[in-house]
Amino acid sequence: MSNASVISPERRIEFNAFDVDAWNLLLRESSARPIDTARIFYEKLVTQFPNAGRYWKAYIEHELRAKNYDKAEALFERCIFQVLHIDLWKSYLHYLKLSKGHIISMREKVADAFELAIDRVGHDIQAAQIYQDYIQFLTDVEAQGQYAENQKVSAIRKVYLRAVATPMLNIETIWQAYCDFEKSVNINLAEKLVADRVKDYQHVKKVLKQMELLMQGINRQAISVPPRGTQAEQKQIDLWRKLIVFEKSNPLRSDEVGLKAKRVIYTYDQALLSLGYHADIWYESAVYHEKIVAELRERGDMKTAETIERETSKLYSRATSGLMRNTPLIHFAHADFEESKGRYDIATKIYDDLIESNDDPTLAYIMLMNFIRRIKGVRAARKVFERARGDKRSKFHIYIAGAMMEFHCIKDSNIAQKIFDYGLKKYGNVPEFATAYIDFLYHVNDENNTRGVIERLLESPDISNELKIEMWDRYLDLETQVGDAASLRKVDHARRQALNEAYDDRQALFLVDRFKFLNLWPCSEDQMKLMGYNKISRLSSTTG
Amino acid sequence: MSNASVISPERRIEFNAFDVDAWNLLLRESSARPIDTARIFYEKLVTQFPNAGRYWKAYIEHELRAKNYDKAEALFERCIFQVLHIDLWKSYLHYLKLSKGHIISMREKVADAFELAIDRVGHDIQAAQIYQDYIQFLTDVEAQGQYAENQKVSAIRKVYLRAVATPMLNIETIWQAYCDFEKSVNINLAEKLVADRVKDYQHVKKVLKQMELLMQGINRQAISVPPRGTQAEQKQIDLWRKLIVFEKSNPLRSDEVGLKAKRVIYTYDQALLSLGYHADIWYESAVYHEKIVAELRERGDMKTAETIERETSKLYSRATSGLMRNTPLIHFAHADFEESKGRYDIATKIYDDLIESNDDPTLAYIMLMNFIRRIKGVRAARKVFERARGDKRSKFHIYIAGAMMEFHCIKDSNIAQKIFDYGLKKYGNVPEFATAYIDFLYHVNDENNTRGVIERLLESPDISNELKIEMWDRYLDLETQVGDAASLRKVDHARRQALNEAYDDRQALFLVDRFKFLNLWPCSEDQMKLMGYNKISRLSSTTG
Repeated sequence: MSNASVISPERRIEFNAFDVDAWNLLLRESSARPIDTARIFYEKLVTQFPNAGRYWKAYIEHELRAKNYDKAEALFERCIFQVLHIDLWKSYLHYLKLSKGHIISMREKVADAFELAIDRVGHDIQAAQIYQDYIQFLTDVEAQGQYAENQKVSAIRKVYLRAVATPMLNIETIWQAYCDFEKSVNINLAEKLVADRVKDYQHVKKVLKQMELLMQGINRQAISVPPRGTQAEQKQIDLWRKLIVFEKSNPLRSDEVGLKAKRVIYTYDQALLSLGYHADIWYESAVYHEKIVAELRERGDMKTAETIERETSKLYSRATSGLMRNTPLIHFAHADFEESKGRYDIATKIYDDLIESNDDPTLAYIMLMNFIRRIKGVRAARKVFERARGDKRSKFHIYIAGAMMEFHCIKDSNIAQKIFDYGLKKYGNVPEFATAYIDFLYHVNDENNTRGVIERLLESPDISNELKIEMWDRYLDLETQVGDAASLRKVDHARRQALNEAYDDRQALFLVDRFKFLNLWPCSEDQMKLMGYNKISRLSSTTG
Repeated sequence: MSNASVISPERRIEFNAFDVDAWNLLLRESSARPIDTARIFYEKLVTQFPNAGRYWKAYIEHELRAKNYDKAEALFERCIFQVLHIDLWKSYLHYLKLSKGHIISMREKVADAFELAIDRVGHDIQAAQIYQDYIQFLTDVEAQGQYAENQKVSAIRKVYLRAVATPMLNIETIWQAYCDFEKSVNINLAEKLVADRVKDYQHVKKVLKQMELLMQGINRQAISVPPRGTQAEQKQIDLWRKLIVFEKSNPLRSDEVGLKAKRVIYTYDQALLSLGYHADIWYESAVYHEKIVAELRERGDMKTAETIERETSKLYSRATSGLMRNTPLIHFAHADFEESKGRYDIATKIYDDLIESNDDPTLAYIMLMNFIRRIKGVRAARKVFERARGDKRSKFHIYIAGAMMEFHCIKDSNIAQKIFDYGLKKYGNVPEFATAYIDFLYHVNDENNTRGVIERLLESPDISNELKIEMWDRYLDLETQVGDAASLRKVDHARRQALNEAYDDRQALFLVDRFKFLNLWPCSEDQMKLMGYNKISRLSSTTG
């Protein structure tokens, strides 16, 4: 730190755009400046860390300090539903209450906001203040007449009951206030009403204790940054996972699947505020959504099921428009989800967007091709292949995928071979491509063409050393498996001659390839290592 | 060492049979004991280190000290041609000279032994003593008459000339003696004879200097032990390799290929005394033999070519009956060498011996099958397959090899499938076997059977977890490549259900498999590592 501090935070950020400490230094400076000169910085900040509630809050509060209410409100709109950060929501409610609470015509809007807040962040362990403020707000409303008074009491009681059923810090104060509230409403009924609740309340307190224990060590203020695989990071992941498992166990013993689910989903959301670059957490949350939808459907709760299903799409969109933008895995998962719901247009658009935005669209093309084949058949999928082939950014894999589709789906090895041949003109020097072609020919038992293609490649004047070695190895494999004595001898000899440069005098390396079979090796692994034989660990990519 | 010394050498050897220091301690003890009680130890010693000249020498000299000449001679016979160790040969010659040199009838035999020694170890940098002793021995012979006298002079001169042409320590003494010798023969001719030689002699001295430099650091007394991959070991290998490269460069500028070759081969032999567990050095020596044979044939020197070719077979036999006994690679190389010379019976015997002596003869069977197919065709090779199948020690690979032979050599996928099916009954729970079968079916475009076999395996009640995962992965691959939407969905779902136990909630791991293609991955390697996805580095063994 002492060393880093002599470099300006701007330089540090240039060097590492995720240097949170440096950003925090700049934030401190900016918050002392007039908002008009700080705004550019804040925009950079929330662009770099779009799910950091703390940064949004700092930005908005700066606007509020300058009384730029329109700007602040526009900012709240940009972040409040994307970033379920408890302090941000508290700040939002505080702003609304102050600016709108006294305007009678606005009261409905403020009440709606409280309801929304309870729906969105009301399960938070730090949500007590929100309930208390809401109750205060409802209490402050002047009710005209008995009917209105009764409605007011019902509304307040509803919030109290929701609050005392939620494990939150400070729940004792709310409980006490609730008891007082019931007494103030009807001293005779109060005792019975409170007594009915007290057992549940005790259980909620017990759950709260467990949660407090589980949340010890969780850093909820941590900003999402790309994983670096540190121990501290892993520790946070483990702690969050434990908390999620705990919520999945339904500690509140709720009969309502929806309630349990909302708490679990809220926990995932909270984890993702700090672990937003972890694709697996996003996906696990989506899988949990789907699981709950199935469970709800089974129980006949179609409405909640539909709501959560819609949430699933939103979750994916949130991920892929945010921190998972550059992680195709989650885009694919999203497309797959939409496909499974029959929303083919949305799925297609997801693939297309990914193809457009990616430097290397090859895998996206292949997945789109698979998808189109599934829903429209091979003829339509061929068009995707044509499109991919014409895209200069595409890599050789597209030819393999196209050929394999023809071979395995249409069972036409001739078309497949033509595609490979076409690809070979372009990618003749790419070992993986050549190998895939050779494998294909060998698998369809076309020895002559296998030999032909290998020899064609070996004769090519600009063949790379790597490909040369690979091709000679394949040639030797082929002759070992099917060749007669003369052709084996010929290839063995030619291979040695050709590879002498690469292997020098280390002839034993050639030998290992001659006498291996699958994972059977002709000498011990130690011996091979000592010889410098390194193919055991080499990733063998096959067209399987 | 201080720690090790409290443990008895016997215990240390029990723990590590190659603890040379411990053996040396026992050797010192044994050499002080009467030979009759020490013999058992010596036999153990030379059994454990069969190519250690130093140990043979100690054993024999102990017998000699006890005047057990017959025993000593029998021991010399056991080792002298296998172990070209200069001190052992010196000891042998010393013994012969002392015990037989004075018996006139034995003189011929002693002279032969000197000739043999010069042929076998006469290129050694420490061979000077042998030449000197030989010359002394020849000088001591009393010649009767002028003809005999002339013959004697010729014989002595021949040895001198050979000696002064060999870079050896102490060569100056021999050179001086040679000059004196010529002067004593004919003072008039001596000057001319010596002058003719002096340039070559100067060059030999230069080569000697280079050799001395190259041999600095080489530990010629090191006993062969299995490699442990230490730096010291690697250093020795590097030094020996440099010396071999030097000899290959023909530093003596000999026109005679045979002479250069003999020096190189002798250097290999010397290296192998210390590096006898290094398969690559054995093989490189054999390859060098073959290269020289080809060169000699090209030059028309058929006789030397034949000699060296015979030496190649002997070299292989020496390796496979000695330290390479448990290294199939060298057995295979030997069989291959004999096959290339058309000596099919010898090749067959090598394979058979290896099959007999090995705990796991599978690879040997497969190589024998390939060999028999090459020389006799598939029908004969099938018999090897049958034999291997009946051998209880064989592993599943034999079925794959058998099936692949039918498929690729006979082009009969039905027979191949039958063999796989037969194997499946026995090896249904071996992931590699099941995978190979699935790959085969998929490559021949037999989707239905692919699905059928996968499902059959998945339904098996005693399926291992590893196989279950592998089969579900294959199933998913299959449906991703050829399945329609419904079957993909079905398999994806079933796979998740089935593997939930193995993967728990880590659902993202399933996802990676859905959206990968060859070496294209749907997220970064770092991300996969963090998720715990480990297939990238997993060795994928295919039936290629």
